[in-house]
Amino acid sequence: MAERIGFIGLGIMGKPMCRNLMKAGFSCTVYNRTRARAEELVAEGAVVADSPKEVTEKSDIVITIVTDTPDVRNVMLGPKGVLEGARPGVVVIDMSTISPSVTQEIAAALEKKDVEMLDAPVSGGDKGAIAGTLSIMVGGKQQVFDRCLPVFQGMGKNINLIGGHGAGQMTKLCNQVAVSLANLAMAEALMLGAKAGLDLEKMLAAISGGAAGSWQLSNLAPRVIKRDFAPGFMVKLQQKDLRLVLAAANELGLGLPGVSLVHQLFNTIEAAGEGAEGTQILVKALERMAGIEVKG
Amino acid sequence: MAERIGFIGLGIMGKPMCRNLMKAGFSCTVYNRTRARAEELVAEGAVVADSPKEVTEKSDIVITIVTDTPDVRNVMLGPKGVLEGARPGVVVIDMSTISPSVTQEIAAALEKKDVEMLDAPVSGGDKGAIAGTLSIMVGGKQQVFDRCLPVFQGMGKNINLIGGHGAGQMTKLCNQVAVSLANLAMAEALMLGAKAGLDLEKMLAAISGGAAGSWQLSNLAPRVIKRDFAPGFMVKLQQKDLRLVLAAANELGLGLPGVSLVHQLFNTIEAAGEGAEGTQILVKALERMAGIEVKG
Repeated sequence: MAERIGFIGLGIMGKPMCRNLMKAGFSCTVYNRTRARAEELVAEGAVVADSPKEVTEKSDIVITIVTDTPDVRNVMLGPKGVLEGARPGVVVIDMSTISPSVTQEIAAALEKKDVEMLDAPVSGGDKGAIAGTLSIMVGGKQQVFDRCLPVFQGMGKNINLIGGHGAGQMTKLCNQVAVSLANLAMAEALMLGAKAGLDLEKMLAAISGGAAGSWQLSNLAPRVIKRDFAPGFMVKLQQKDLRLVLAAANELGLGLPGVSLVHQLFNTIEAAGEGAEGTQILVKALERMAGIEVKG
Repeated sequence: MAERIGFIGLGIMGKPMCRNLMKAGFSCTVYNRTRARAEELVAEGAVVADSPKEVTEKSDIVITIVTDTPDVRNVMLGPKGVLEGARPGVVVIDMSTISPSVTQEIAAALEKKDVEMLDAPVSGGDKGAIAGTLSIMVGGKQQVFDRCLPVFQGMGKNINLIGGHGAGQMTKLCNQVAVSLANLAMAEALMLGAKAGLDLEKMLAAISGGAAGSWQLSNLAPRVIKRDFAPGFMVKLQQKDLRLVLAAANELGLGLPGVSLVHQLFNTIEAAGEGAEGTQILVKALERMAGIEVKG
Protein backbone atom coordinates (compact mmCIF):
# COMPACT_ATOMS: atom_id res chain seq x y z
CA MET A 1 0.00 0.00 0.00
CA ALA A 2 1.28 3.49 -0.83
CA GLU A 3 2.57 5.60 2.00
CA ARG A 4 0.08 8.11 3.41
CA ILE A 5 1.61 11.58 3.16
CA GLY A 6 1.23 14.44 5.61
CA PHE A 7 2.09 17.88 4.26
CA ILE A 8 2.77 20.89 6.49
CA GLY A 9 3.37 24.29 4.91
CA LEU A 10 1.44 25.21 1.78
CA GLY A 11 3.29 28.33 0.66
CA ILE A 12 4.61 29.23 -2.76
CA MET A 13 6.71 26.04 -2.75
CA GLY A 14 4.70 23.64 -0.61
CA LYS A 15 1.39 23.92 -2.39
CA PRO A 16 2.55 22.87 -5.86
CA MET A 17 4.77 20.19 -4.32
CA CYS A 18 1.79 18.72 -2.43
CA ARG A 19 -0.32 18.97 -5.57
CA ASN A 20 2.28 16.97 -7.52
CA LEU A 21 2.25 14.27 -4.84
CA MET A 22 -1.52 13.94 -5.13
CA LYS A 23 -1.21 13.76 -8.93
CA ALA A 24 1.32 10.97 -8.41
CA GLY A 25 -1.32 9.03 -6.47
CA PHE A 26 -0.41 9.77 -2.86
CA SER A 27 -3.17 10.58 -0.39
CA CYS A 28 -2.33 13.74 1.53
CA THR A 29 -3.38 15.14 4.90
CA VAL A 30 -2.43 18.80 4.96
CA TYR A 31 -1.91 21.61 7.46
CA ASN A 32 -1.16 25.27 7.00
CA ARG A 33 -1.00 28.02 9.62
CA THR A 34 -3.40 30.04 7.46
CA ARG A 35 -6.10 27.42 7.04
CA ALA A 36 -7.60 28.93 3.86
CA ARG A 37 -4.53 27.87 1.87
CA ALA A 38 -5.11 24.29 2.96
CA GLU A 39 -8.80 24.37 2.07
CA GLU A 40 -7.85 25.19 -1.53
CA LEU A 41 -6.43 21.68 -1.89
CA VAL A 42 -9.55 19.86 -0.61
CA ALA A 43 -11.20 19.92 -4.03
CA GLU A 44 -8.15 18.06 -5.33
CA GLY A 45 -8.48 15.33 -2.70
CA ALA A 46 -6.55 16.59 0.30
CA VAL A 47 -7.82 16.16 3.88
CA VAL A 48 -7.28 19.18 6.12
CA ALA A 49 -6.00 18.68 9.68
CA ASP A 50 -6.08 21.10 12.61
CA SER A 51 -2.48 20.73 13.73
CA PRO A 52 0.89 19.20 12.79
CA LYS A 53 0.11 16.64 15.52
CA GLU A 54 -3.09 15.55 13.76
CA VAL A 55 -1.32 15.44 10.38
CA THR A 56 1.28 13.11 11.85
CA GLU A 57 -1.30 10.82 13.47
CA LYS A 58 -2.89 10.26 10.06
CA SER A 59 0.32 9.84 8.01
CA ASP A 60 3.27 7.51 7.42
CA ILE A 61 5.58 10.17 5.99
CA VAL A 62 5.27 13.79 7.12
CA ILE A 63 6.75 16.55 4.95
CA THR A 64 7.40 20.04 6.31
CA ILE A 65 8.30 23.06 4.24
CA VAL A 66 8.01 26.25 6.25
CA THR A 67 9.97 29.50 6.35
CA ASP A 68 12.86 29.33 8.77
CA THR A 69 14.63 27.47 11.57
CA PRO A 70 12.33 28.54 14.46
CA ASP A 71 9.25 27.59 12.41
CA VAL A 72 10.57 24.09 11.81
CA ARG A 73 11.51 23.67 15.46
CA ASN A 74 8.04 24.77 16.52
CA VAL A 75 6.20 22.55 14.02
CA MET A 76 8.31 19.56 15.02
CA LEU A 77 8.83 19.94 18.76
CA GLY A 78 6.29 22.59 19.87
CA PRO A 79 2.77 22.14 21.30
CA LYS A 80 0.48 20.10 19.01
CA GLY A 81 3.59 19.47 16.93
CA VAL A 82 4.78 16.52 14.89
CA LEU A 83 6.55 14.86 17.81
CA GLU A 84 3.34 14.78 19.86
CA GLY A 85 1.53 12.92 17.09
CA ALA A 86 4.37 10.61 16.12
CA ARG A 87 4.56 6.86 16.58
CA PRO A 88 7.55 4.59 15.89
CA GLY A 89 8.15 4.09 12.18
CA VAL A 90 6.91 7.48 11.03
CA VAL A 91 9.39 9.37 8.83
CA VAL A 92 9.62 13.16 8.89
CA ILE A 93 11.10 14.98 5.89
CA ASP A 94 11.95 18.62 6.38
CA MET A 95 12.20 20.31 2.99
CA SER A 96 12.61 23.84 4.38
CA THR A 97 16.02 25.50 4.19
CA ILE A 98 17.18 25.86 7.80
CA SER A 99 20.22 25.58 10.07
CA PRO A 100 22.17 22.32 9.58
CA SER A 101 23.07 22.16 13.27
CA VAL A 102 19.47 22.71 14.45
CA THR A 103 18.46 20.03 11.95
CA GLN A 104 20.76 17.63 13.79
CA GLU A 105 19.21 18.61 17.13
CA ILE A 106 15.68 18.01 15.83
CA ALA A 107 16.69 14.68 14.27
CA ALA A 108 18.10 13.60 17.65
CA ALA A 109 14.92 14.63 19.48
CA LEU A 110 12.76 12.68 17.01
CA GLU A 111 15.03 9.64 17.13
CA LYS A 112 14.37 9.28 20.86
CA LYS A 113 10.78 8.44 19.89
CA ASP A 114 11.93 6.10 17.07
CA VAL A 115 10.95 8.66 14.46
CA GLU A 116 13.36 8.95 11.55
CA MET A 117 14.10 12.28 9.90
CA LEU A 118 15.52 13.36 6.56
CA ASP A 119 16.56 16.91 5.78
CA ALA A 120 15.76 17.51 2.14
CA PRO A 121 15.93 21.16 1.06
CA VAL A 122 15.28 21.94 -2.57
CA SER A 123 16.44 24.27 -5.29
CA GLY A 124 14.67 25.21 -8.49
CA GLY A 125 12.22 27.80 -7.18
CA ASP A 126 8.46 27.89 -7.59
CA LYS A 127 8.85 27.04 -11.29
CA GLY A 128 10.61 23.81 -10.34
CA ALA A 129 8.02 23.12 -7.65
CA ILE A 130 5.17 23.48 -10.15
CA ALA A 131 6.93 21.45 -12.86
CA GLY A 132 8.05 18.75 -10.43
CA THR A 133 11.68 19.26 -11.43
CA LEU A 134 13.18 20.39 -8.12
CA SER A 135 16.71 19.42 -7.12
CA ILE A 136 16.49 17.70 -3.74
CA MET A 137 19.55 17.54 -1.45
CA VAL A 138 19.08 14.94 1.25
CA GLY A 139 20.70 14.18 4.61
CA GLY A 140 19.90 11.13 6.73
CA LYS A 141 20.10 7.34 6.64
CA GLN A 142 20.33 5.38 3.38
CA GLN A 143 17.42 3.03 4.22
CA VAL A 144 15.16 5.93 5.10
CA PHE A 145 16.17 7.70 1.90
CA ASP A 146 15.37 4.54 -0.09
CA ARG A 147 11.92 4.31 1.50
CA CYS A 148 11.17 7.95 0.68
CA LEU A 149 12.61 7.99 -2.83
CA PRO A 150 9.22 7.46 -4.58
CA VAL A 151 7.89 10.45 -2.68
CA PHE A 152 10.86 12.61 -3.72
CA GLN A 153 10.38 11.45 -7.32
CA GLY A 154 6.88 12.88 -7.19
CA MET A 155 8.35 16.34 -6.63
CA GLY A 156 11.79 16.49 -8.20
CA LYS A 157 14.40 15.21 -10.64
CA ASN A 158 17.97 15.55 -9.38
CA ILE A 159 17.67 13.74 -6.03
CA ASN A 160 20.87 13.11 -4.06
CA LEU A 161 21.58 11.61 -0.65
CA ILE A 162 24.70 13.50 0.44
CA GLY A 163 25.37 12.19 3.94
CA GLY A 164 23.98 12.04 7.49
CA HIS A 165 21.56 14.41 9.25
CA GLY A 166 22.20 18.02 8.20
CA ALA A 167 24.17 17.12 5.05
CA GLY A 168 21.23 18.07 2.85
CA GLN A 169 20.95 21.46 4.55
CA MET A 170 24.71 22.03 4.34
CA THR A 171 24.68 21.17 0.63
CA LYS A 172 21.85 23.66 0.11
CA LEU A 173 23.99 26.28 1.85
CA CYS A 174 26.94 25.44 -0.44
CA ASN A 175 24.49 25.93 -3.31
CA GLN A 176 23.52 29.36 -2.00
CA VAL A 177 27.19 30.34 -1.62
CA ALA A 178 27.83 29.50 -5.28
CA VAL A 179 24.58 31.15 -6.42
CA SER A 180 25.33 34.40 -4.56
CA LEU A 181 28.82 34.82 -5.90
CA ALA A 182 27.80 33.85 -9.43
CA ASN A 183 25.23 36.64 -9.11
CA LEU A 184 27.97 39.10 -8.08
CA ALA A 185 30.09 37.87 -11.01
CA MET A 186 27.23 38.75 -13.35
CA ALA A 187 26.59 42.11 -11.66
CA GLU A 188 30.21 43.29 -11.77
CA ALA A 189 30.72 42.17 -15.38
CA LEU A 190 27.57 44.09 -16.38
CA MET A 191 28.70 47.15 -14.42
CA LEU A 192 32.09 47.29 -16.13
CA GLY A 193 30.50 46.85 -19.54
CA ALA A 194 27.81 49.45 -18.88
CA LYS A 195 30.17 52.06 -17.47
CA ALA A 196 32.45 51.56 -20.49
CA GLY A 197 29.51 52.00 -22.85
CA LEU A 198 29.55 48.52 -24.38
CA ASP A 199 26.57 47.01 -26.19
CA LEU A 200 25.65 44.69 -23.33
CA GLU A 201 23.77 42.16 -25.41
CA LYS A 202 26.79 41.73 -27.65
CA MET A 203 29.11 41.54 -24.65
CA LEU A 204 26.96 38.83 -23.07
CA ALA A 205 26.81 36.87 -26.32
CA ALA A 206 30.61 36.98 -26.50
CA ILE A 207 31.33 35.78 -22.95
CA SER A 208 28.43 33.57 -21.86
CA GLY A 209 29.52 30.42 -23.68
CA GLY A 210 33.04 30.14 -22.25
CA ALA A 211 34.92 30.03 -18.96
CA ALA A 212 32.90 33.01 -17.68
CA GLY A 213 29.64 31.18 -18.28
CA SER A 214 27.10 30.40 -15.57
CA TRP A 215 23.41 29.74 -15.08
CA GLN A 216 23.11 33.22 -13.57
CA LEU A 217 24.80 34.89 -16.54
CA SER A 218 22.69 33.02 -19.10
CA ASN A 219 19.36 33.31 -17.28
CA LEU A 220 19.45 36.50 -15.21
CA ALA A 221 21.76 38.91 -17.07
CA PRO A 222 19.33 39.23 -20.01
CA ARG A 223 16.61 40.16 -17.49
CA VAL A 224 18.82 42.77 -15.83
CA ILE A 225 19.54 44.59 -19.08
CA LYS A 226 15.77 44.67 -19.75
CA ARG A 227 15.35 46.08 -16.20
CA ASP A 228 13.23 43.06 -15.29
CA PHE A 229 13.63 42.45 -11.57
CA ALA A 230 10.60 40.19 -11.11
CA PRO A 231 11.48 37.46 -8.64
CA GLY A 232 12.58 34.02 -9.68
CA PHE A 233 13.97 33.95 -6.14
CA MET A 234 13.32 36.85 -3.76
CA VAL A 235 16.11 38.89 -2.19
CA LYS A 236 14.64 38.48 1.31
CA LEU A 237 14.71 34.68 0.98
CA GLN A 238 18.26 34.78 -0.39
CA GLN A 239 19.22 36.92 2.60
CA LYS A 240 17.61 34.44 5.00
CA ASP A 241 19.70 31.70 3.41
CA LEU A 242 22.88 33.78 3.53
CA ARG A 243 22.26 34.36 7.24
CA LEU A 244 22.20 30.56 7.59
CA VAL A 245 25.44 30.35 5.58
CA LEU A 246 27.18 32.95 7.73
CA ALA A 247 25.88 31.39 10.96
CA ALA A 248 27.20 28.00 9.81
CA ALA A 249 30.53 29.65 8.94
CA ASN A 250 30.61 31.16 12.44
CA GLU A 251 29.91 27.79 14.05
CA LEU A 252 32.63 26.18 11.91
CA GLY A 253 35.17 29.00 12.35
CA LEU A 254 35.33 29.60 8.63
CA GLY A 255 35.94 32.86 6.73
CA LEU A 256 33.84 33.39 3.61
CA PRO A 257 34.75 36.91 2.51
CA GLY A 258 32.96 36.85 -0.84
CA VAL A 259 29.61 35.70 0.50
CA SER A 260 29.87 38.25 3.31
CA LEU A 261 30.30 40.97 0.71
CA VAL A 262 27.22 39.85 -1.23
CA HIS A 263 25.20 39.72 1.98
CA GLN A 264 26.20 43.30 2.82
CA LEU A 265 25.34 44.52 -0.67
CA PHE A 266 21.93 42.85 -0.38
CA ASN A 267 21.42 44.67 2.93
CA THR A 268 21.46 47.92 0.96
CA ILE A 269 18.91 46.46 -1.47
CA GLU A 270 16.62 45.54 1.42
CA ALA A 271 17.13 48.99 2.94
CA ALA A 272 15.91 50.46 -0.36
CA GLY A 273 12.66 48.51 0.05
CA GLU A 274 13.47 45.98 -2.67
CA GLY A 275 13.50 42.78 -0.61
CA ALA A 276 10.60 41.28 -2.56
CA GLU A 277 12.37 41.69 -5.93
CA GLY A 278 14.38 38.96 -7.62
CA THR A 279 18.01 38.38 -6.66
CA GLN A 280 19.23 39.83 -9.98
CA ILE A 281 18.52 43.24 -8.43
CA LEU A 282 21.88 42.87 -6.63
CA VAL A 283 23.36 44.91 -9.49
CA LYS A 284 21.43 47.95 -8.22
CA ALA A 285 23.66 48.09 -5.14
CA LEU A 286 26.59 48.69 -7.47
CA GLU A 287 24.59 50.97 -9.77
CA ARG A 288 23.77 53.28 -6.87
CA MET A 289 27.46 53.58 -5.98
CA ALA A 290 28.34 54.32 -9.60
CA GLY A 291 25.40 56.56 -10.44
CA ILE A 292 24.52 54.62 -13.59
CA GLU A 293 22.03 52.02 -14.76
CA VAL A 294 22.85 48.81 -16.60
CA LYS A 295 20.66 48.78 -19.71
CA GLY A 296 20.59 46.70 -22.89
CA MET B 1 44.24 36.57 -53.74
CA ALA B 2 44.39 35.56 -50.10
CA GLU B 3 45.63 38.13 -47.64
CA ARG B 4 49.28 37.79 -46.66
CA ILE B 5 49.48 37.46 -42.88
CA GLY B 6 52.15 38.85 -40.56
CA PHE B 7 52.30 37.25 -37.12
CA ILE B 8 54.13 38.84 -34.19
CA GLY B 9 54.40 36.96 -30.89
CA LEU B 10 54.78 33.19 -30.98
CA GLY B 11 54.18 32.28 -27.34
CA ILE B 12 51.94 29.61 -25.88
CA MET B 13 48.95 31.20 -27.66
CA GLY B 14 50.48 32.78 -30.76
CA LYS B 15 52.32 29.78 -32.08
CA PRO B 16 49.34 27.42 -32.42
CA MET B 17 47.20 30.30 -33.72
CA CYS B 18 49.76 31.04 -36.45
CA ARG B 19 50.03 27.34 -37.22
CA ASN B 20 46.23 27.14 -37.71
CA LEU B 21 46.36 30.07 -40.12
CA MET B 22 49.00 28.31 -42.22
CA LYS B 23 46.88 25.14 -42.17
CA ALA B 24 43.98 27.25 -43.42
CA GLY B 25 46.12 28.28 -46.41
CA PHE B 26 47.41 31.70 -45.37
CA SER B 27 51.06 32.55 -46.01
CA CYS B 28 52.68 33.90 -42.84
CA THR B 29 55.66 36.12 -42.17
CA VAL B 30 56.52 35.77 -38.49
CA TYR B 31 58.51 37.58 -35.81
CA ASN B 32 59.26 36.70 -32.23
CA ARG B 33 61.58 38.47 -29.79
CA THR B 34 63.27 35.12 -29.13
CA ARG B 35 64.03 34.19 -32.75
CA ALA B 36 64.36 30.43 -32.09
CA ARG B 37 60.58 30.18 -31.53
CA ALA B 38 60.00 31.69 -34.97
CA GLU B 39 62.48 29.34 -36.66
CA GLU B 40 60.40 26.38 -35.44
CA LEU B 41 57.63 27.43 -37.83
CA VAL B 42 59.86 27.66 -40.93
CA ALA B 43 59.54 23.94 -41.65
CA GLU B 44 55.77 24.47 -41.78
CA GLY B 45 56.10 27.24 -44.36
CA ALA B 46 56.57 30.44 -42.36
CA VAL B 47 59.05 33.13 -43.39
CA VAL B 48 60.98 34.69 -40.51
CA ALA B 49 61.47 38.45 -40.36
CA ASP B 50 63.94 40.49 -38.31
CA SER B 51 61.54 43.07 -36.91
CA PRO B 52 57.84 43.98 -36.65
CA LYS B 53 58.63 46.62 -39.30
CA GLU B 54 59.81 43.97 -41.76
CA VAL B 55 56.78 41.75 -40.97
CA THR B 56 54.48 44.65 -41.78
CA GLU B 57 56.25 45.50 -45.05
CA LYS B 58 55.64 41.94 -46.26
CA SER B 59 52.01 41.57 -45.07
CA ASP B 60 48.46 42.78 -45.69
CA ILE B 61 47.15 41.91 -42.23
CA VAL B 62 49.47 41.98 -39.22
CA ILE B 63 48.49 40.08 -36.06
CA THR B 64 50.11 40.80 -32.71
CA ILE B 65 49.74 38.68 -29.60
CA VAL B 66 52.27 39.63 -26.95
CA THR B 67 52.21 39.82 -23.18
CA ASP B 68 51.06 43.20 -21.95
CA THR B 69 50.21 46.81 -22.76
CA PRO B 70 53.81 48.18 -22.97
CA ASP B 71 54.81 45.29 -25.25
CA VAL B 72 51.99 46.07 -27.69
CA ARG B 73 52.81 49.78 -27.65
CA ASN B 74 56.47 49.03 -28.35
CA VAL B 75 55.76 46.53 -31.14
CA MET B 76 53.34 48.95 -32.78
CA LEU B 77 54.86 52.39 -32.23
CA GLY B 78 58.47 51.72 -31.14
CA PRO B 79 61.64 51.60 -33.26
CA LYS B 80 61.47 49.07 -36.09
CA GLY B 81 57.82 48.67 -35.14
CA VAL B 82 54.66 48.02 -37.14
CA LEU B 83 53.97 51.71 -37.77
CA GLU B 84 57.38 52.20 -39.41
CA GLY B 85 56.68 49.40 -41.87
CA ALA B 86 53.05 50.25 -42.53
CA ARG B 87 51.52 51.53 -45.75
CA PRO B 88 47.90 52.66 -46.30
CA GLY B 89 45.47 49.75 -46.40
CA VAL B 90 47.34 47.49 -44.02
CA VAL B 91 45.21 46.17 -41.13
CA VAL B 92 46.69 45.50 -37.71
CA ILE B 93 44.90 43.08 -35.37
CA ASP B 94 46.03 43.07 -31.76
CA MET B 95 44.96 39.82 -30.10
CA SER B 96 46.84 40.43 -26.84
CA THR B 97 44.83 41.32 -23.73
CA ILE B 98 45.76 44.92 -22.92
CA SER B 99 44.39 48.24 -21.73
CA PRO B 100 41.26 49.35 -23.64
CA SER B 101 42.26 53.02 -23.38
CA VAL B 102 45.81 52.42 -24.64
CA THR B 103 44.26 50.38 -27.46
CA GLN B 104 42.32 53.49 -28.47
CA GLU B 105 45.53 55.57 -28.39
CA ILE B 106 47.35 53.08 -30.60
CA ALA B 107 44.44 52.86 -33.02
CA ALA B 108 44.48 56.67 -33.33
CA ALA B 109 48.24 56.72 -33.98
CA LEU B 110 47.89 54.07 -36.69
CA GLU B 111 44.89 55.79 -38.26
CA LYS B 112 47.02 58.90 -38.96
CA LYS B 113 48.97 56.71 -41.41
CA ASP B 114 45.75 55.22 -42.87
CA VAL B 115 46.37 51.95 -41.08
CA GLU B 116 43.25 50.32 -39.62
CA MET B 117 43.32 48.45 -36.34
CA LEU B 118 41.12 45.86 -34.66
CA ASP B 119 41.47 44.83 -31.03
CA ALA B 120 40.62 41.15 -30.85
CA PRO B 121 41.55 39.49 -27.57
CA VAL B 122 40.67 35.85 -27.15
CA SER B 123 39.49 33.41 -24.52
CA GLY B 124 39.75 29.64 -24.51
CA GLY B 125 43.37 29.22 -23.42
CA ASP B 126 46.11 27.27 -25.13
CA LYS B 127 43.70 24.36 -25.66
CA GLY B 128 41.41 26.63 -27.68
CA ALA B 129 44.39 28.08 -29.54
CA ILE B 130 45.55 24.60 -30.58
CA ALA B 131 42.05 23.39 -31.48
CA GLY B 132 41.17 26.59 -33.34
CA THR B 133 38.13 27.11 -31.13
CA LEU B 134 39.01 30.42 -29.46
CA SER B 135 36.35 32.97 -28.62
CA ILE B 136 37.38 36.25 -30.27
CA MET B 137 36.04 39.58 -28.97
CA VAL B 138 36.55 42.33 -31.52
CA GLY B 139 36.57 46.13 -31.43
CA GLY B 140 36.88 48.32 -34.53
CA LYS B 141 35.05 49.15 -37.75
CA GLN B 142 32.51 46.83 -39.35
CA GLN B 143 34.13 46.85 -42.79
CA VAL B 144 37.54 46.05 -41.35
CA PHE B 145 36.01 43.25 -39.28
CA ASP B 146 34.32 41.85 -42.40
CA ARG B 147 37.63 41.86 -44.28
CA CYS B 148 39.39 40.04 -41.44
CA LEU B 149 36.64 37.52 -40.67
CA PRO B 150 38.19 34.70 -42.75
CA VAL B 151 41.41 35.16 -40.77
CA PHE B 152 39.54 35.01 -37.45
CA GLN B 153 37.71 31.91 -38.66
CA GLY B 154 41.09 30.23 -39.06
CA MET B 155 41.70 30.59 -35.33
CA GLY B 156 38.38 30.61 -33.53
CA LYS B 157 34.67 29.83 -33.40
CA ASN B 158 32.68 32.37 -31.40
CA ILE B 159 33.71 35.59 -33.17
CA ASN B 160 31.89 38.80 -32.21
CA LEU B 161 32.30 42.43 -33.23
CA ILE B 162 31.24 44.28 -30.08
CA GLY B 163 31.82 47.94 -30.95
CA GLY B 164 34.50 50.50 -31.79
CA HIS B 165 38.20 50.54 -30.87
CA GLY B 166 38.75 49.09 -27.39
CA ALA B 167 35.37 47.33 -27.20
CA GLY B 168 37.00 43.94 -27.74
CA GLN B 169 39.45 44.58 -24.91
CA MET B 170 36.72 45.85 -22.62
CA THR B 171 34.61 42.76 -23.34
CA LYS B 172 37.61 40.57 -22.51
CA LEU B 173 37.89 42.42 -19.20
CA CYS B 174 34.18 41.83 -18.51
CA ASN B 175 34.91 38.17 -19.21
CA GLN B 176 37.73 38.18 -16.67
CA VAL B 177 35.49 39.83 -14.07
CA ALA B 178 32.92 37.07 -14.47
CA VAL B 179 35.58 34.33 -14.55
CA SER B 180 37.26 35.57 -11.35
CA LEU B 181 34.10 35.78 -9.31
CA ALA B 182 32.81 32.44 -10.61
CA ASN B 183 36.12 31.04 -9.39
CA LEU B 184 35.54 32.57 -5.94
CA ALA B 185 31.99 31.14 -5.96
CA MET B 186 33.47 27.69 -6.52
CA ALA B 187 36.17 28.17 -3.89
CA GLU B 188 33.82 29.35 -1.13
CA ALA B 189 31.25 26.63 -1.83
CA LEU B 190 34.01 24.01 -1.62
CA MET B 191 35.37 25.53 1.58
CA LEU B 192 31.99 25.42 3.33
CA GLY B 193 31.41 21.85 2.22
CA ALA B 194 34.90 20.73 3.23
CA LYS B 195 34.85 22.41 6.63
CA ALA B 196 31.44 20.83 7.31
CA GLY B 197 32.76 17.40 6.34
CA LEU B 198 30.53 16.86 3.29
CA ASP B 199 31.33 14.33 0.58
CA LEU B 200 32.42 16.96 -1.94
CA GLU B 201 31.82 14.87 -5.03
CA LYS B 202 28.23 14.30 -3.94
CA MET B 203 27.80 17.95 -3.04
CA LEU B 204 29.07 19.03 -6.47
CA ALA B 205 26.80 16.53 -8.23
CA ALA B 206 23.84 17.96 -6.33
CA ILE B 207 24.46 21.65 -7.08
CA SER B 208 26.30 21.86 -10.42
CA GLY B 209 23.25 21.40 -12.65
CA GLY B 210 21.10 24.21 -11.24
CA ALA B 211 21.18 27.93 -10.48
CA ALA B 212 24.61 27.54 -8.83
CA GLY B 213 26.06 26.03 -11.99
CA SER B 214 28.97 27.52 -13.91
CA TRP B 215 31.77 26.51 -16.26
CA GLN B 216 34.19 26.97 -13.36
CA LEU B 217 32.19 24.71 -11.05
CA SER B 218 31.79 21.98 -13.67
CA ASN B 219 35.35 22.10 -15.01
CA LEU B 220 37.61 23.26 -12.19
CA ALA B 221 35.97 22.08 -8.94
CA PRO B 222 36.59 18.38 -9.79
CA ARG B 223 40.29 19.24 -10.28
CA VAL B 224 40.47 21.07 -6.97
CA ILE B 225 39.14 18.12 -4.98
CA LYS B 226 41.77 15.92 -6.70
CA ARG B 227 44.37 18.56 -5.72
CA ASP B 228 45.17 19.12 -9.40
CA PHE B 229 46.37 22.71 -9.78
CA ALA B 230 47.97 22.32 -13.22
CA PRO B 231 47.30 25.47 -15.23
CA GLY B 232 44.51 25.77 -17.72
CA PHE B 233 45.08 29.48 -17.17
CA MET B 234 47.94 30.68 -14.94
CA VAL B 235 47.41 32.80 -11.83
CA LYS B 236 50.03 35.34 -12.93
CA LEU B 237 48.20 35.91 -16.25
CA GLN B 238 44.88 36.19 -14.44
CA GLN B 239 46.46 38.76 -12.15
CA LYS B 240 47.79 40.73 -15.11
CA ASP B 241 44.25 40.79 -16.52
CA LEU B 242 42.75 41.80 -13.17
CA ARG B 243 45.23 44.68 -12.98
CA LEU B 244 43.83 45.79 -16.36
CA VAL B 245 40.29 45.44 -14.97
CA LEU B 246 41.06 47.49 -11.88
CA ALA B 247 42.94 50.12 -13.91
CA ALA B 248 39.94 50.40 -16.24
CA ALA B 249 37.67 50.68 -13.18
CA ASN B 250 39.91 53.47 -11.87
CA GLU B 251 39.77 55.32 -15.17
CA LEU B 252 35.99 54.95 -15.28
CA GLY B 253 35.44 55.79 -11.58
CA LEU B 254 33.80 52.44 -10.94
CA GLY B 255 33.82 50.32 -7.78
CA LEU B 256 34.17 46.57 -8.29
CA PRO B 257 34.43 45.22 -4.73
CA GLY B 258 34.20 41.53 -5.61
CA VAL B 259 36.93 41.55 -8.23
CA SER B 260 39.15 43.56 -5.90
CA LEU B 261 38.74 40.87 -3.28
CA VAL B 262 39.69 38.11 -5.71
CA HIS B 263 42.72 40.11 -6.83
CA GLN B 264 43.87 40.49 -3.21
CA LEU B 265 43.41 36.79 -2.50
CA PHE B 266 45.45 35.95 -5.60
CA ASN B 267 48.20 38.27 -4.28
CA THR B 268 48.61 35.84 -1.38
CA ILE B 269 48.80 32.95 -3.86
CA GLU B 270 51.55 34.72 -5.79
CA ALA B 271 53.35 35.51 -2.53
CA ALA B 272 53.34 31.78 -1.78
CA GLY B 273 55.22 31.20 -5.04
CA GLU B 274 52.22 29.71 -6.84
CA GLY B 275 51.83 32.23 -9.67
CA ALA B 276 52.48 29.61 -12.36
CA GLU B 277 49.71 27.30 -11.12
CA GLY B 278 46.19 27.25 -12.54
CA THR B 279 43.60 29.75 -11.33
CA GLN B 280 41.70 27.04 -9.45
CA ILE B 281 44.43 27.35 -6.79
CA LEU B 282 42.53 30.44 -5.52
CA VAL B 283 40.89 28.11 -3.00
CA LYS B 284 44.27 27.74 -1.26
CA ALA B 285 44.09 31.37 -0.10
CA LEU B 286 40.96 30.42 1.85
CA GLU B 287 42.38 27.06 2.92
CA ARG B 288 45.37 28.75 4.53
CA MET B 289 43.08 31.02 6.55
CA ALA B 290 40.98 28.06 7.66
CA GLY B 291 43.80 25.59 8.23
CA ILE B 292 42.14 22.86 6.14
CA GLU B 293 42.41 21.36 2.67
CA VAL B 294 39.56 20.77 0.27
CA LYS B 295 39.75 17.13 -0.77
CA GLY B 296 37.44 14.74 -2.61
